[in-house]
Amino acid sequence: MVKIGIVGVGTVGEAVIKNLEKNKDLIKARAGKEIKAIKGVVRDINKKRDIDIPLTTDYKEVTRNPEIDIVVELMGGVESAYEVVKDALLHNKAVVTANKALLAYHRFELQKLAKTPFEYEASVAGGIPIIKALRDGLSANHILEIKGIINGTCNYILSEMKKGRDYKEVLKEAQQKGYAEADPTFDVGGYDAAHKLLILASIAYNIDAKPEDILIEGIENINLTDIEFAKEFGYEIKLLGIAKKTGSEIELRVHPTLIRKEEMISKVEGVMNAVSVIGDVVGETMYYGPGAGGDATASAVISDIIEIARGNKNPMLGYKIPLELEKLNLKPTEEIKSKYYLRIAVNDKLGVLEKIANILATNNISIESFLQKPRNGYVKLLFATHICKEKEIKKAIDEIQKLDFVIKPVNYIRIEE
Amino acid sequence: MVKIGIVGVGTVGEAVIKNLEKNKDLIKARAGKEIKAIKGVVRDINKKRDIDIPLTTDYKEVTRNPEIDIVVELMGGVESAYEVVKDALLHNKAVVTANKALLAYHRFELQKLAKTPFEYEASVAGGIPIIKALRDGLSANHILEIKGIINGTCNYILSEMKKGRDYKEVLKEAQQKGYAEADPTFDVGGYDAAHKLLILASIAYNIDAKPEDILIEGIENINLTDIEFAKEFGYEIKLLGIAKKTGSEIELRVHPTLIRKEEMISKVEGVMNAVSVIGDVVGETMYYGPGAGGDATASAVISDIIEIARGNKNPMLGYKIPLELEKLNLKPTEEIKSKYYLRIAVNDKLGVLEKIANILATNNISIESFLQKPRNGYVKLLFATHICKEKEIKKAIDEIQKLDFVIKPVNYIRIEE
Repeated sequence: MVKIGIVGVGTVGEAVIKNLEKNKDLIKARAGKEIKAIKGVVRDINKKRDIDIPLTTDYKEVTRNPEIDIVVELMGGVESAYEVVKDALLHNKAVVTANKALLAYHRFELQKLAKTPFEYEASVAGGIPIIKALRDGLSANHILEIKGIINGTCNYILSEMKKGRDYKEVLKEAQQKGYAEADPTFDVGGYDAAHKLLILASIAYNIDAKPEDILIEGIENINLTDIEFAKEFGYEIKLLGIAKKTGSEIELRVHPTLIRKEEMISKVEGVMNAVSVIGDVVGETMYYGPGAGGDATASAVISDIIEIARGNKNPMLGYKIPLELEKLNLKPTEEIKSKYYLRIAVNDKLGVLEKIANILATNNISIESFLQKPRNGYVKLLFATHICKEKEIKKAIDEIQKLDFVIKPVNYIRIEE
Repeated sequence: MVKIGIVGVGTVGEAVIKNLEKNKDLIKARAGKEIKAIKGVVRDINKKRDIDIPLTTDYKEVTRNPEIDIVVELMGGVESAYEVVKDALLHNKAVVTANKALLAYHRFELQKLAKTPFEYEASVAGGIPIIKALRDGLSANHILEIKGIINGTCNYILSEMKKGRDYKEVLKEAQQKGYAEADPTFDVGGYDAAHKLLILASIAYNIDAKPEDILIEGIENINLTDIEFAKEFGYEIKLLGIAKKTGSEIELRVHPTLIRKEEMISKVEGVMNAVSVIGDVVGETMYYGPGAGGDATASAVISDIIEIARGNKNPMLGYKIPLELEKLNLKPTEEIKSKYYLRIAVNDKLGVLEKIANILATNNISIESFLQKPRNGYVKLLFATHICKEKEIKKAIDEIQKLDFVIKPVNYIRIEE
């Protein structure tokens, strides 16, 4: 029998315990062994819970418990989770975690420390087995590109805005439905997606970047004009986590993106997640499913537990690309190239377009398409550019912003084609 | 070093050899060992080939070669491939195959025989790692349902017909482009999809059905009227392989299907493949990618080789659901329940609708929606029914067909909701 200790018995922890019990015959058949959660670690031992296993408030009763084979960390947060996982690994427990924030900061360190299996399928895109796909299914491939819808809150908000609804109104509704936190910054600001992107990139490229090293922008500035522009030119707007290999450099970035509506990933609606992966041998494959929720996350957590119970050696061993094989560096943000969409609100005066076009040309930015929309008392100029560098467009936007007839903050969205 | 022998050096075989060479450093890093194809078995040794390994016409030089660790069977066909794979397994070679026809008939027998790893990721949906997803990523789940677009030829033809193009014209074009064979029956008749469905079902349900046991219908009778009806009522028409668990019975069927255009799998266009899987814990996940082609198939074949080279024990062991655990029987075709769309061409006479409605009612079939379209000199009646049994609808269709005002064969398409 394989015995599990669970640190953090909230929504996901309860779902893991319940599903291990509900599907125990199936799980035993598939793992080759019975699997049982025998202890939980909680902060508040008096809270009413819908599960029936012994609880403690001291994580060491799990991490150092000679009876326990696998420690499942579901407490969230970075530093105290780090302490727990480290203690478990040092005491030769296998560890399964769903904690993306922990992994965004400490995955390499913990992976190096691990002499036992250390698995985290649930940390990215909930129930979608994307980590196993990268590690096993696509193992023959150099990964050229990853594009992920890996934050359901943002995808829900953007999907609703397509119906003509206002950002603030939809956000409020998402909060009421429980899709968004009271402080939504972590989701709508792109930080949650960035944590997950870093985990995917570490598996695909063995690159040890931290959130503060990469470009992260949220969906807070998207408005209905942008949605209209997207419709008119055949795009969808999605918050994407993008990892891209060009030569020996890796681009990592999270931002709202205009993406052609023919692309499969642009068709993902509502709270669902999807990750598109382009491999040099296979081409594009995509993985779609629920990115959050107790049961969906438990499905991934238990799949890791079953894998460990099957008794295969640390399945991450033999996977990592040794750094001496491929020296991949993070591309500096200002060197990233993209097409851009620009939204510029101006007073309707003579020569306005000429001055803006001049700034774009001076900064090496050529225009692919252009749309002018009158509003009450002012005009919106909507541009789509050809490919240019991040630093060029930023400089151009700064200059445009300073023009006296520009009456609102200039907004931009990157275009992926 | 892990040494490979390849039986059948056609498009896929060449792609395996080339990609093993092209990505050898990456593959070595991920497998933990160097992997090298050292011998190929071909029918015509004098044919010009773009690869550089020793060739033979005698498969025993591979299956009984003490130097060789893994035999990769890519020759196609059933009986001679069976002979080769059996010989390899009996001589304790690990076997990787992409041969869906072989597996549709002999997978259980070969799996039982295997004392060494026996893997076949490439046999279903080409480059999409769907078998590993079922086996590993979704291992915590009872699989409630599988819906697959697993024949690219059919999906291409149906996608083109949506543009208003005729079936025969598109089929001819598909043949010219190499998407369809000179004799297209195997693809357009649903047999290829059936082979793949049986493989998926054997992994999800451990059910040993053969192609002749299950419902298989092709896309040959779809016409532009059906496409118009689908558009009008918010459906897409797709050839789906469907496996569904209801109680202790499994439904297995391949047929054209009307499916709501909001469903993710209905959005798959052209030659691409996708498999949607509903698990009792995770809900719906979907896997999308190229279902054919030398490189895409090679990606899956090599992922199996890497898995074997990593040295994990037979990864299929411990996966199978023992039959004593779940006694799942194949549901008889006539007991399958579905909604149906009916296309009935009639002479425009008094009382026509009444007589047809009467036949439907007598057979317990109630009508959900109805559309009447005039054509040159006759009328098309298009019905969508509520859920009824296969045997009821078949009886009703027989009766309707005999009415003297029905001037063409009645066509039907099942509706999945």
